[in-house]
Amino acid sequence: MTIKALDCEYTLNTVIRDATGRDCPKLLADALNYAVFPGGARVRPRLCLAVALANGNTNPLLSAAAAAAVELLHCASLVHDDLPCFDDATSRRGKPSVHAAFGERIAVLTGDALIVAAFQSLASVPIASTQPERLAAVTQIVARGVGAPHGICAGQAWECEPNIDLKRYHQSKTGALFVASTCAGAAAAGVDSAPWELLGASIGEAYQVADDILDAISSPELIGKPTGVDARLGRPSAVAELGLDGAVKRLEACIDAGLSSIPNCSGREALLAIVEHQSERFFPPGVKRSAA
Amino acid sequence: MTIKALDCEYTLNTVIRDATGRDCPKLLADALNYAVFPGGARVRPRLCLAVALANGNTNPLLSAAAAAAVELLHCASLVHDDLPCFDDATSRRGKPSVHAAFGERIAVLTGDALIVAAFQSLASVPIASTQPERLAAVTQIVARGVGAPHGICAGQAWECEPNIDLKRYHQSKTGALFVASTCAGAAAAGVDSAPWELLGASIGEAYQVADDILDAISSPELIGKPTGVDARLGRPSAVAELGLDGAVKRLEACIDAGLSSIPNCSGREALLAIVEHQSERFFPPGVKRSAA
Repeated sequence: MTIKALDCEYTLNTVIRDATGRDCPKLLADALNYAVFPGGARVRPRLCLAVALANGNTNPLLSAAAAAAVELLHCASLVHDDLPCFDDATSRRGKPSVHAAFGERIAVLTGDALIVAAFQSLASVPIASTQPERLAAVTQIVARGVGAPHGICAGQAWECEPNIDLKRYHQSKTGALFVASTCAGAAAAGVDSAPWELLGASIGEAYQVADDILDAISSPELIGKPTGVDARLGRPSAVAELGLDGAVKRLEACIDAGLSSIPNCSGREALLAIVEHQSERFFPPGVKRSAA
Repeated sequence: MTIKALDCEYTLNTVIRDATGRDCPKLLADALNYAVFPGGARVRPRLCLAVALANGNTNPLLSAAAAAAVELLHCASLVHDDLPCFDDATSRRGKPSVHAAFGERIAVLTGDALIVAAFQSLASVPIASTQPERLAAVTQIVARGVGAPHGICAGQAWECEPNIDLKRYHQSKTGALFVASTCAGAAAAGVDSAPWELLGASIGEAYQVADDILDAISSPELIGKPTGVDARLGRPSAVAELGLDGAVKRLEACIDAGLSSIPNCSGREALLAIVEHQSERFFPPGVKRSAA
């Protein structure tokens, strides 16, 4: 039971099974499954659970629900980001994007239903095992990471402004959900979430820089989505700003900042190892690293 | 304080003010305000608060948050329904629809941010004054009314199916949020929500039939949105199915069913009067009623 509860994938399966129950229109049910499974690297929920574990994971059902909620909201943002009115991306995770496979209307509704499912799953954590103030804290942290004025919706909306605030754009479009991941993991375990913001912000920035590098030097066959998008759309990118070597240095600096920000906690050493190991994935094969 | 807390409009103002804080991109902030203010008839939050009041309204902050959440989710559904890929409606509530005024991208994000804000506002009800099990119940009821498989998202998705299940379509697209309104009002007041489902379902069906009648016989100038849409898109409608007189009889029958379903509670008489009064709005001027 505890092992299953710890498994974010198990929670995701339960949430999507409930959302696609017998009465659900077939196309929407298929699209909900398609948008969530098979997953990507599940970087955010892993980070969330790792922080909860480092702090004793004293409410495993809540931390599993928090991790699942973060991932569902990430999936929702991908589905809506890929829409024709935004990136008009026809592929994602190595297969047609949701709007390419199911049409634009189902893609809008899939994103909406995933947002709702994220909050519904949090509210479904059994009250008997939940410290209610933790549930409220986790829900508010997660909502802050995706809504307005500081979350993904706001980040995406910066793309519509005549003058873009680059720092806020990246912080809200990418960083906010990473901050939500670390902070929700901490809050689910009953510790103050504020000291965990910097880890999320640093890993979020590292992830953004890594994505910029991949977009500049990789191919659609390797990463399962279009590349060269930043250059084509004239979008800001760490590679455009700093060059490839400079971007790699920035990536290394972000990871270092994240690692050294990890507060004292019972599982600090194990968390350091997990974050270091996961961060290795951020470096595309063949990219020249700085001397260690 | 109690009067303000009871005022759904006050809660809506607070939620939108928070969502459009200083850091929010301007277009998104403007669109969020535009989508929520000035409101329509606020039928759903009034119904939610009326049910809470009829049951003693023993947690006014929670019932106000529930009413606001229901209205925010309704506003979100209107913004997404009006998108070019769905109804492609250029006007709503007597002014340009959100996508017509702000563009399609901002309209998608506005709907998303309103969904998040609804759940964020529920999670922000002060814990000290909240029975935590009530908060969880209200959140789950509200989520069920908008997500999949039974809520608005599912209802809208029926429009994408080759074979539409008409009853489920109406129940989920319109009825579900009315059921959420009455049930969330009851749950916020700490009473069993199940006996309040029929009131929501009946008023929801009445509202749907009234909307069909308006679409068939009114004009855009009178109701602030396009008319004749059902006939143009070949969509199912009570008027197409039953004729105008038949649709009016169905409307009356729905309201009667709702009124007689109201369970025993301390404020039953007052609630009957409120529902009867509000239902009067469902009859367009000049429509011939049955003999009372």
